[in-house]
Amino acid sequence: MERRDFLQAGLAFGAAAGIGAGVSLVPEMARAAVRRSGGPLRLNSNENPLGLPQAARRAILDGLAEANRYPRESRIELVGALAALHRVEPENIVLGNGSTEVLQMSVQALAQENARLVLADPTFEDVPWYGQPFPYRLEKVPLDGRHAHDIGRMKERAEGGGRAIVYICNPNNPTGTVTPSSEVDEWIESADENTYFLVDEAYYEYCVDPGYWSCTKWVTKPNVIVARTFSKIYGMAGMRLGYAVAHKEAAARLSEYIAKTNANHLVLVAARVCLDDAELVPASLEANSRAMRILYDVLEELDLEYLPSQANFVMHRINSDLATYGRRMLESGVRVGRPFPPMLGYNRLSIGLPEEMERFAEILREFRKKGWT
Amino acid sequence: MERRDFLQAGLAFGAAAGIGAGVSLVPEMARAAVRRSGGPLRLNSNENPLGLPQAARRAILDGLAEANRYPRESRIELVGALAALHRVEPENIVLGNGSTEVLQMSVQALAQENARLVLADPTFEDVPWYGQPFPYRLEKVPLDGRHAHDIGRMKERAEGGGRAIVYICNPNNPTGTVTPSSEVDEWIESADENTYFLVDEAYYEYCVDPGYWSCTKWVTKPNVIVARTFSKIYGMAGMRLGYAVAHKEAAARLSEYIAKTNANHLVLVAARVCLDDAELVPASLEANSRAMRILYDVLEELDLEYLPSQANFVMHRINSDLATYGRRMLESGVRVGRPFPPMLGYNRLSIGLPEEMERFAEILREFRKKGWT
Repeated sequence: MERRDFLQAGLAFGAAAGIGAGVSLVPEMARAAVRRSGGPLRLNSNENPLGLPQAARRAILDGLAEANRYPRESRIELVGALAALHRVEPENIVLGNGSTEVLQMSVQALAQENARLVLADPTFEDVPWYGQPFPYRLEKVPLDGRHAHDIGRMKERAEGGGRAIVYICNPNNPTGTVTPSSEVDEWIESADENTYFLVDEAYYEYCVDPGYWSCTKWVTKPNVIVARTFSKIYGMAGMRLGYAVAHKEAAARLSEYIAKTNANHLVLVAARVCLDDAELVPASLEANSRAMRILYDVLEELDLEYLPSQANFVMHRINSDLATYGRRMLESGVRVGRPFPPMLGYNRLSIGLPEEMERFAEILREFRKKGWT
Repeated sequence: MERRDFLQAGLAFGAAAGIGAGVSLVPEMARAAVRRSGGPLRLNSNENPLGLPQAARRAILDGLAEANRYPRESRIELVGALAALHRVEPENIVLGNGSTEVLQMSVQALAQENARLVLADPTFEDVPWYGQPFPYRLEKVPLDGRHAHDIGRMKERAEGGGRAIVYICNPNNPTGTVTPSSEVDEWIESADENTYFLVDEAYYEYCVDPGYWSCTKWVTKPNVIVARTFSKIYGMAGMRLGYAVAHKEAAARLSEYIAKTNANHLVLVAARVCLDDAELVPASLEANSRAMRILYDVLEELDLEYLPSQANFVMHRINSDLATYGRRMLESGVRVGRPFPPMLGYNRLSIGLPEEMERFAEILREFRKKGWT
């Protein structure tokens, strides 16, 4: 390769990675600008619209030289860093190919004839999906009036002999609502050892509710598994990494169902540096809350009810048929969330960049003019 | 970031990715030089020592802009390309987080009370490992005098009522030996539908034996699953991607046990371009065969018996205790293969770059002088 071509390659990379001159002024906009070229606005999968963090990009570049090797040191280092973060031992951490593999391992490892799988309705769909091939008895418990997990009714369904796996997604996907941690704590504290808690904290970092805290403190108990992810606030959904924080016994049990060498080298090194980037979470939170305010404003202007959210998405009324609404949105250049029965009068909208939400607001106003919402 | 810093970042990337000026003359050496800085020679995990292909590196750079998004188009595109490559439909392809996840899905999907898991001894260990939590009856059949799968004896163990899963690793890991495809064909053709074949072709591209061909032609039968990987000749072990080619029924069954969204965006785009890179496989083959010749020469010089290999590793006699040998090799700066009982008089050595094999040859001669081999 000639030097000129090399510099062009570097420049192309600089643009793609958002490390070109001047970019530091508005890094998120520049990064997003590249990504958004062409295609609909993607307000459908609760991804971080700021893109891959710059620290992650640099770590990935360095990591390319080792990407032909099975990850070894990078895995040990990340597990060590996660253990330190959660003040546990490395044996309490199980890496997953996204937190979804943590959910999968849990469902598989705990499967048993007549075991009950107790979960909210609606909630994230992966746990019942992974449960399908196993002889679970599915117990769906509607969210309560606060759109929180109805702990009382879930308890009734879980207790009464035999094993139960209780899935608690907090904040809950798709509603963005919080179940008070004191209520969860109380149940975990009093539950017998046959009741397993699988607590999904994918949106943990977005939640600012003072009545919310992590369940990782409960991993002193062998029946509690907490799932975390790098797909949301860490902006790495496409890189695939999540993890469990769990009691050593539970972690060992999960690991019998792990896909060997599951986390790729590039996400391991990227995640490692992102844990040390003190600005990453606050910057994403700030962008998320600015963009969410724009969405709230247009929903209030159009009198479309919404559930105030503690995550990076909002469940809001659409006053129309969801399939038609989704199709029209796509035709207008916006990919919106999938249906979450039984809440079929609502759409789950992921929070994009502020200017993306401005664009969505315009489109929603046009929908109103046409009588489509 | 200042322009100067940006250029430095670009330059650093250029070095890491092996696209700096002049590098095209000896790309493999330059790429490897970066990787090998510090640490022992890694002749232990059958990786491609040439490093990540250049085409893959460029695709990864382009892919960074989308790595915050769950992979969607990149997944569809790769599945389509693999289907075209194997002249099957996209429904015949199941992506895995490495081919190891294909083995995992297969073992899980086919588990059944009293099912037999029939495999060679020694062979790759992942299938029995994934089988552990399930009620399989393990049937290990020693390799025959040619170090090929003993199809006759495997057949005896597999047949006789009930389900059997037959794992055929061809070329076989850790021996690098081939089981004649005509023998495998004959069995698959005559087997009943209760006998499932899980054929691991991780080293397919390395094999030049005229009596060897792929089992993908058998995926017209619902009881045949073929596993392939991008970890070996494609140089992407750290990126994590493999796939199954299988009958639609088998593929659908496997997919019930898939980790959702299992392949990361960067490996999807990298694999896609590598499939179109006509020079990639021949270049790796050539480097492998040059380096293997260096190894064969020193083994012959020292009168250490070895199994002629059809892969990127060689099983050879060590004339010493394997644990001691491995420790001494590590102290001498070489990581060698793990033990594969019952062949404890042998070591499995992965083929490195030619100059790495020269270095290994020197060390082995020193071992001989010291009476260590």
